[in-house]
Amino acid sequence: MIIIGELINASRKAIGAAIKEKDEQAVRKVAADQAENGASFIDVNAGIFVDDEPDYLTWLVKNVQAVTDVPCAIDSPNPKAIEAALAVHKGAAPMINSISLEKDRWENLLPIVAGTDLKVVALCMSDDGMPQTVDDRMKIADKLVNGLLQKDVKLENIFIDPLVQPLSVNKEFGMQFLDTIEQITTQFAGIHTACGLSNISYGLPARKFINRAFMTIAIAKGLDGAIMNPMDKGMIAAITLGEALAGKDDFCMKYLKAFRAGLFE
Amino acid sequence: MIIIGELINASRKAIGAAIKEKDEQAVRKVAADQAENGASFIDVNAGIFVDDEPDYLTWLVKNVQAVTDVPCAIDSPNPKAIEAALAVHKGAAPMINSISLEKDRWENLLPIVAGTDLKVVALCMSDDGMPQTVDDRMKIADKLVNGLLQKDVKLENIFIDPLVQPLSVNKEFGMQFLDTIEQITTQFAGIHTACGLSNISYGLPARKFINRAFMTIAIAKGLDGAIMNPMDKGMIAAITLGEALAGKDDFCMKYLKAFRAGLFE
Repeated sequence: MIIIGELINASRKAIGAAIKEKDEQAVRKVAADQAENGASFIDVNAGIFVDDEPDYLTWLVKNVQAVTDVPCAIDSPNPKAIEAALAVHKGAAPMINSISLEKDRWENLLPIVAGTDLKVVALCMSDDGMPQTVDDRMKIADKLVNGLLQKDVKLENIFIDPLVQPLSVNKEFGMQFLDTIEQITTQFAGIHTACGLSNISYGLPARKFINRAFMTIAIAKGLDGAIMNPMDKGMIAAITLGEALAGKDDFCMKYLKAFRAGLFE
Repeated sequence: MIIIGELINASRKAIGAAIKEKDEQAVRKVAADQAENGASFIDVNAGIFVDDEPDYLTWLVKNVQAVTDVPCAIDSPNPKAIEAALAVHKGAAPMINSISLEKDRWENLLPIVAGTDLKVVALCMSDDGMPQTVDDRMKIADKLVNGLLQKDVKLENIFIDPLVQPLSVNKEFGMQFLDTIEQITTQFAGIHTACGLSNISYGLPARKFINRAFMTIAIAKGLDGAIMNPMDKGMIAAITLGEALAGKDDFCMKYLKAFRAGLFE
């Protein structure tokens, strides 16, 4: 599982305050903790600051990179903020989170990723709004993939996000997401998928149980990336179980390691 | 989920002793508990008694039916024991657990189920041993289904068991089972599937976590029957999550009911 650590997001109260106060230590600690707990990318989001987003995003990238070699996922639809962040980012290629088929977003972000080694999350969203069915999602996924490939973005750098919608709104939304993941991984061999899963349980109680079970099923359907809290032990346990049951854990070594670390108690 | 309550099995120490001592109350309590906790069938197994199996199985059926209307799953490969048990079974049609493509078993049990309303568990097993791949399982499933249909067993009375093998032996065994479930439910619309899942975790620690995660995935792949302990709250929670995420829980009503009953704490 390719984990995109989601904790450095200005919309979270503690992080928003840390950014405003330029509290380097607070941000660096959250970055280091996520890297130590298995994050493959550290998401940085300063979206609430609007006009100052380029400055704050740049400051976030610098502070994350002060404590870890794990690359950033630059989480913004604002091309100025992304370019400012990319200008200071060092080392392994970062991720852009995220492009979509919405006209403005597509036209603003495509030139940034074209012909580069940047990773890119591509949302199954267009100006027609949220797709409702597997077919709707696949039509958008097809346009996203072809559009990116034509601009020399490598297939293995694309992370398609089919967008999770709440079960409480429609009982079919879980399977529609899961079947889309299966079709994407079958149709575009070598591509990645990624998403935030927690929207599935919106409006329901005891959400963590739903989120974990959904993760386990999604892995069996082919999901290989997630935007999540890498310090969530229960979710890491669910991922470990999903990967073992899906045949992705040689000799159950990762499962046994997680068991010895106390993840199943 | 069609739950076949597995607890009345003579190979379990307490039940074996209760049967030997003809302790009616002990057996009746286990039957009533399973029925109250959602079992659709109460499995009865007196296999360890060999020569006396017909007598003991008959005694078990009578005692189960003394406390519940839930039909029995008559768990034996012995046609004499099955016929004796059927002769005393009243009410809704019981289940035969189980036929397979092994020559003796097929020839002994087919005449018993032919042209009846009995439910029957059919194991994907032949005289060639345990099938290794999805294709091997599907070939056996195809022969089982066609053979039963030709003898006027209705499709909706057949429960195919693709047989779970341990992940610790081969990391692909989980997905091979799951993909077989998916193919069976797709290819034979209206048929049922059923199995004991716990073999998946044989040889590994913290088995219950693996078993529950496997159940959740299996439901998303189409599994609709399980031979299990209906009093296992953790497994019932896993089933509830699987059914909600698989689109089988209108307005998440069963999930909400299970939440209020304290299943997610």
